[in-house]
This record gives sequence, structure tokens and C-alpha cells, in this order.
Amino acid sequence: MAKDKKVEQITDMEVDFAQWFTDICTKAELVDYSGVKGLFILRPYGYAIWENIQAVLDRKFKELGHTNVSMPVLIPESLLQKEKDHVQGFAPECAWVTVGGSEELPERLCIRPTSETLFCDHWSHIIHSWRDLPCLYNQWCSVLRWEKTTRPFLRGREFLWQEGHTLHATEEEARKETLQMLEVYAELCEEYLAMPVLRGNKTDKEKFAGAVNTYTIECMMHDHKALQSGTSHYFGDGFAQAFGIQFSDKENKLRYPHQTSWGLSTRTIGGLIMTHGDNSGLVVPPRIAPLQVIVLPIAAHRPGVTEKAEEIVARLQAAGVRVKGDFSDNSPGWKFANWEMKGVPVRLEIGPKDMEAGKCVAVSRCDGSKTDIPLDALETRIPELLEEVQKSLFERAKRNLEENTFSAQTVDEVRQIVEGSGGFIKTMWCGDEACELKMKELAGVTSRCIPFEQEIVGDVCPVCGRPAKTMVVWGQAY
Amino acid sequence: MAKDKKVEQITDMEVDFAQWFTDICTKAELVDYSGVKGLFILRPYGYAIWENIQAVLDRKFKELGHTNVSMPVLIPESLLQKEKDHVQGFAPECAWVTVGGSEELPERLCIRPTSETLFCDHWSHIIHSWRDLPCLYNQWCSVLRWEKTTRPFLRGREFLWQEGHTLHATEEEARKETLQMLEVYAELCEEYLAMPVLRGNKTDKEKFAGAVNTYTIECMMHDHKALQSGTSHYFGDGFAQAFGIQFSDKENKLRYPHQTSWGLSTRTIGGLIMTHGDNSGLVVPPRIAPLQVIVLPIAAHRPGVTEKAEEIVARLQAAGVRVKGDFSDNSPGWKFANWEMKGVPVRLEIGPKDMEAGKCVAVSRCDGSKTDIPLDALETRIPELLEEVQKSLFERAKRNLEENTFSAQTVDEVRQIVEGSGGFIKTMWCGDEACELKMKELAGVTSRCIPFEQEIVGDVCPVCGRPAKTMVVWGQAY
Repeated sequence: MAKDKKVEQITDMEVDFAQWFTDICTKAELVDYSGVKGLFILRPYGYAIWENIQAVLDRKFKELGHTNVSMPVLIPESLLQKEKDHVQGFAPECAWVTVGGSEELPERLCIRPTSETLFCDHWSHIIHSWRDLPCLYNQWCSVLRWEKTTRPFLRGREFLWQEGHTLHATEEEARKETLQMLEVYAELCEEYLAMPVLRGNKTDKEKFAGAVNTYTIECMMHDHKALQSGTSHYFGDGFAQAFGIQFSDKENKLRYPHQTSWGLSTRTIGGLIMTHGDNSGLVVPPRIAPLQVIVLPIAAHRPGVTEKAEEIVARLQAAGVRVKGDFSDNSPGWKFANWEMKGVPVRLEIGPKDMEAGKCVAVSRCDGSKTDIPLDALETRIPELLEEVQKSLFERAKRNLEENTFSAQTVDEVRQIVEGSGGFIKTMWCGDEACELKMKELAGVTSRCIPFEQEIVGDVCPVCGRPAKTMVVWGQAY
Repeated sequence: MAKDKKVEQITDMEVDFAQWFTDICTKAELVDYSGVKGLFILRPYGYAIWENIQAVLDRKFKELGHTNVSMPVLIPESLLQKEKDHVQGFAPECAWVTVGGSEELPERLCIRPTSETLFCDHWSHIIHSWRDLPCLYNQWCSVLRWEKTTRPFLRGREFLWQEGHTLHATEEEARKETLQMLEVYAELCEEYLAMPVLRGNKTDKEKFAGAVNTYTIECMMHDHKALQSGTSHYFGDGFAQAFGIQFSDKENKLRYPHQTSWGLSTRTIGGLIMTHGDNSGLVVPPRIAPLQVIVLPIAAHRPGVTEKAEEIVARLQAAGVRVKGDFSDNSPGWKFANWEMKGVPVRLEIGPKDMEAGKCVAVSRCDGSKTDIPLDALETRIPELLEEVQKSLFERAKRNLEENTFSAQTVDEVRQIVEGSGGFIKTMWCGDEACELKMKELAGVTSRCIPFEQEIVGDVCPVCGRPAKTMVVWGQAY
């Protein structure tokens, strides 16, 4: 039967981590594959998680003075080419429209891989005076990057994201914005997605095409690999010069403004899966969960059970909890497995014996622990329990991050860690890109970031032996 | 000075209606032109109106059990071709991706002009049993149609919209959904956008490519032309058959489900402009306005005026009004013109004399009428006034619709009305497409709809003289 297929066993993560991930994506009904490789369908449950992420970010953006806009989906090739580093970074992975209606186009148009060039072109029309600054824009949309290998959430040829683009009168203000928006992403990850982050600066090699600085938040997955979960870029006035964006300052002098951009995508849902999921399926932190509580009547045929379950649903709904009851004719076993697969943070069971005792049983999706909840304390105890689950998930993820972060003095030590359990590896670094490349070649890791919180874990660069400038964190990454 | 340019005089609508419209689009800062013809930038103020429309619809959709999903932006040519009528309707105006990365694609992909084929392909994977129905989906996105002539909001090669797609076990249920969603659009238009609508059925000639029935709401613009503002389609099981979507019913028999789709786009913002705007600029109905009240201090240099204005802003904000104060150093004349251009429904003026009298002056953007508002009654009187403005706008638009709706007995009468003031013209009709085409040829009008509320305005078809079957409303349309 179709309905039983849905909750068939998924691959254990210890057996095949990649397959475990894909199994959750499809069996928790987050995505479906479309007819085009790398273009995924976000199904209702997957999209609802994205909507909750959107709601958190959109509110924070607006509180900080940003407004949403909508830019075209297509970029003329000549526009993409205006900033040299940028076009080199993105042109090789663009999808190109060459025919419109029945006619060959005079110039080919790419589907936006990112929209810096569109924002800059627009700004060159509308920015005239210091009164027009700062310009604090954001856009919710999808972008296309024609990747060779693709995976749901982690590497799609199309993915949903938001891209913030801002323009400021001074470097100081723009740099402040860049860091502020990284902090917004860090808050989303830590406080809502229960994913602890490592904040830092990307090396020149790893930064965004055309940026002066790229800041990143890096999260650690179950397999100890890193997921870059959000980035924020400071551009200086390079794009402004390339696009001829100038403003007259208060002394009526023409100047180039300073620019930032920052983006966070549906990739974070992939991060959520690989941070909290287990061999029974997805686990969604309560604050971001489309459904926080599922109520299951036990022995529903017995008098009053269904009515009591319905009453519990109604009371929790009235208390602001995102809750549903499963009154289908599926077996209890099927229901348990199905809602575990979906990662609903709390399952509430109510049966005849519970009713007699004036209680119900709450089961945490974090650790399976059971708690008796007196029925007359539902409205206070369930929100408390949801907060406890939220906290437990964060703490478990934090332990994973801390226990799998190491320091190393030599390239050999780095390689041994990578070949062992993997993880984040701190070393000193001379700052030379040649050493960064050598580390990748010899130990199979890339630089994840130069953490804002620096430590002195040695004196010299483990690759060249020269005096070290900064501490870098290395890792294998998605 | 740049800031004065923004409020330079716009073209009078009586002089050049099309130019008046375009002037409002750019001078009220709703849109900017991009480097690609027909692809427009929605600026913060224009996008904020769209966000308010989205919020109303998204809430209504969800209350009615719909969930949002995200489909790919690209459709393989072979998928588009699966339903014959559909591909004939859309293929000629598609934009085609032929190159991905640096490689020619084996099959060209079009940017979605609408997503029926994508939803059907997905449904063919996930629909198995009656338990999987109904499937009530919606998507917020942009679509592309490679039009020859383009205008902001009214005819873009790219436009933002929502497209609802649903699948039902029975024809009855699907037909009910089709009409229900048309009613949701009608409510949005009448209750929020203050645009009275004419509801009806499209003729076969005017219906959506592949639909059995298309229902429409038609609004009348200042120039007495019609704007099709939202459509809802019943597809029968034609797509389901073409895409092999089947479900086993409760008797375990395989059946084809019945399908609907319905869409409303940023076109409605064009309708808003041409329904309420005047020669001073945009007029936005309060319930949908990004900014409902603008507070202007008069003689702001006089002691206490700015402080009082700030206090008014704070009090109204706390009362849930979308309000801002203009404390810039621009002249009062510039401020008046600027906020009139933006169509903010109520302007509140507060000066030294008003303060002495314990009042402020509210000016309605609908008719310029002034009302003294006692300062101690702000929180009740301003929301009341906003509702009055909302109502006045609707009533004015309703008068325009009623006063410019006519009945005609002959093709000559229809032509005379079209050549005079224009408007909606009711005639009887035999139901023959040849007569519909002839009416267009002879009188320059298309059938807008077969209204749900039928009247008997004659006995025979004015074109062929044969007995009439239904009443049709004709008009010139955007």
C-alpha cells in the first residue's frame, strides 16, 4: 500500500550518510525531483520550513530598516561582464536564454546566478545625492547555477534564497552593515535552527567573486563536515566604479558609495537535516517547526478518546501551539513512524488509562524521553516542553561541534584527524595562498574561515614553517 | 536638484492616458526599467503594495486549506508539449534556455510561462489513492511570457504572481474550488483594493489554453477600458489523462482526478493606478497602503511643533496605523506634492495654531477634503477616517463602473458607444464564435465575460440575428 511505503525504513546514517540524507529529503516529503537535473520541487512540508525561516529573517531585516524589492530574473551578458572578478566567478555556471518567442536574441541573457549587477545597474539610475543613502534592499527569489553534481538542498542548479544588497556613503557604515547581517544569520541559526555557528572571515581564495571581504558562518554536520550556512560580503566601491554609481556628498563633491551583499538559502534546511536528523528521520527544532505537536489518540475506538484528543488539539491551538491531531485510520505503529520521520518535536499520546489519570504522555523527538503532562496544565507545560526540546537540540549540536574541533601543529596531524573522525581543525597560518592550496592537496581540507575569535595554537604555519599571522579553521565541506 | 525632479508635474490623464499611467509608475517610485525590455524592477514602494496583496491572499488561501510549494523555474520542451491546447497557447511566447554552463543542452528548457505542466508531472509521482486528494497547492513566483509590446504592471515579459493548482476526486469538488477561488479574488479587489468587479465566465475563445472553463473578474479603469484582474480555471481531467495521473478510489478503481488553477498578478497594481489615481499621482486604498498616514509638521521651526508631530506618529503607530512623519528639510510644498504623488490616503498637518486649538488637520487623498481631528481622539478618529476613505474610493469606482455600463441591441449601437465614451456593453449572444469575431472586427471590442448575473437585454444576437443564448459583456481591454 502506498501509505505504508512512505514510512519504510531509511538507510542508517552510519551505513551510508549521503543516502541517509537523501532518504530523509524524499521520505519526510520535503522534496521531489523534477524532470531537469538539479531542479528540485519543494513540497508543502519542506516549503513550510522555508516559510518559517523567511518569516524570522524578513522581520529582522525590516526591523533593521531594509525593504524588499524585486529584480528581473534575466541579466544581459554585457551587464554581467561589467565587473571583472564577478563575471569570472559566475559566467562558467550560468544558464543562458538565447531564444525569445520564435526569435534568436541579439544578446544572450543569463538567468541570475546572483543579482549584484542588476542592483548596481538600478542604483546607477536612482542614486544622486547623499540623501539617497543608505539604500537597504533585500530580495526573496531563486537563482540558478549550472552545477555538475547536484543534491537536494545542498547543491541545486536552482535554489531559493534571499539576497540583501546595500549601498552606503562610507566604508565604515558598509563594513558595520556586513557584520550586522552576518550576526542576523548567526542568530537565526543558533536561536531558531538550533545550529551553533563558527563566525569568521573567508580567506581571499574562498571569498565571493568581486568582494573585498566575505564573512561566513560555518556549522558542523553529524559527519563532522562543515556547511557554510550564510555569507555576508563587503565590496568596497569596486562595483560602484564599474557601474558608474556616484553621489554628491554634503559638500557637493561626487563620491563612490560602498556596497555590501549577503545571502542565506534553502541550504540551511540541508544543514538542519544533517545537524538534528537521526535514523528515524528528520528532527525539526520547535521554533522553526511547521508542526510542533502531533496528538495521537491511543485506542481511539474506546469511548471519549477521540473527543479528548480533539479537545487537546483545540486547547493547544488556542494557546498558540502549531498542533494537529492524527485521526486517520492508520495503525498506531504507522503513525509513530510517520510523525517521527517528519521530525515533529513533540508527540502527545492520549488513551483511556491516561484519561482516567487526568494526564497525557508527551514524547520528545530529541531523545524519545516521555513525560506525563497533567491535562489541566497543558497550556503551560507544552510550550515549556517545546522550549526544552529546542534547548536540548542546540546543546547536543554544540557538543558535537566542540568535541570535534581540534588543534594541530603539523600537516600530518591535520591529515590524521581528517582520516580519523574528521572535524574542524585549528592551525596557525602564514597568510600565503600557496600554503592554503598545499594544505588542501596534502590533507584534503579547505579553509573554512579565519575565526573572529582568534587563539594562538602555535607559532608557525604548519605548511611552510614561516611565522604565523592568524589562526585558520580547516575542514571538509559541503 | 534631484529631489525636486521627483515631484515634477505628471502628464494629465485627459491629455495622454498612457503617458499619465507611465508617469505615475516611475514618479511614484513604483518601478524602474531594467536593461531587458519588458523586465521591470519593483522598487520598495511598489513591492510593498504587492507584499500587502500577498499577505491578504496568502492568509485566505491558508484558511481554505491550501499550502505553498515551490516548483522549478524551467520546463523541458517535451513536458510543455504533453497537453496539446496548452502548448499551442504558450509555446510561441516562451523564453528558451539552450546553454547551461558552457554546454549546449540536449533539450531546450523554457522559463515557466505558467506551471500546470510542472504540477502535473509532480502529481504523477505522488498521487496514488483517494487519501492523497484533494491536493491544494499554491506558488508565489514570477513567470515569463515573451510579449512584443510591454508596459509596467500591465504587460511585462516577466511578472510576479501566485498560481494556485489543485487536484480533486470529483468534478463537482473541482468546480466548487474554481468558483471559490474566483470569489477570493473578488473579495481582495472589492474589500482591499476598492475595485468593484464584474464576475463571469470567459467564452471559449477567451479561455485559458487547455481549460474547460475560465472564470474571470473584470474591473473598469478610468478610461472605461476593462482590466482582467484575476482568473480561475477548471480543467476537467484533460491534463490528468495527458500526464497519467490516476488514483484508486474507495472501491479500489483507478480514476483520473479533476484539476483547477487560478492566478492573480502584479497586474492588479496597474488596475489600482488606473482605478484610483488622479492628475496629482497615485491614490492607494488605506487597507492595502504601505503607508496610511503621513504626518507633516507645519512651521516645524516653531517651538514644540516637531515634538508634537513625533508624538502623533508614535501614538498612531501604537494604535496599529501604518504612519510616518516627514521631518526632512524639504519645503511644505514639496512634501505635499511628494506624498500626494505616492498616494498616501491621509495627510495629517500639525502647526502652532492647531496645537493651540488642541487639534490637527486631516486631508483625504480621495477628494482633498479637510477634517479637524481633536488630538485626544486621534486613536479612534484616524482609523475611522481611513475606513471612510476606503469606502469613498470604492463608491467612486463603483459609480464609474455603473455609469459606464450600457446595453445595446445592434452592432452599430455597440460601435457608437465604443467610439464615444467607451465602457462595458451588454448584448445578447447566440454563442457562436463567428459572431464574437465579427463583433471584434466591426465594433473593436472583445467579449469580457458571460456574467454570472444574467439579464435579458434583448431576444436575438446583434450580429447574426439568430435567437440569443446568453448575455455577454463586451469592452476594450488591457
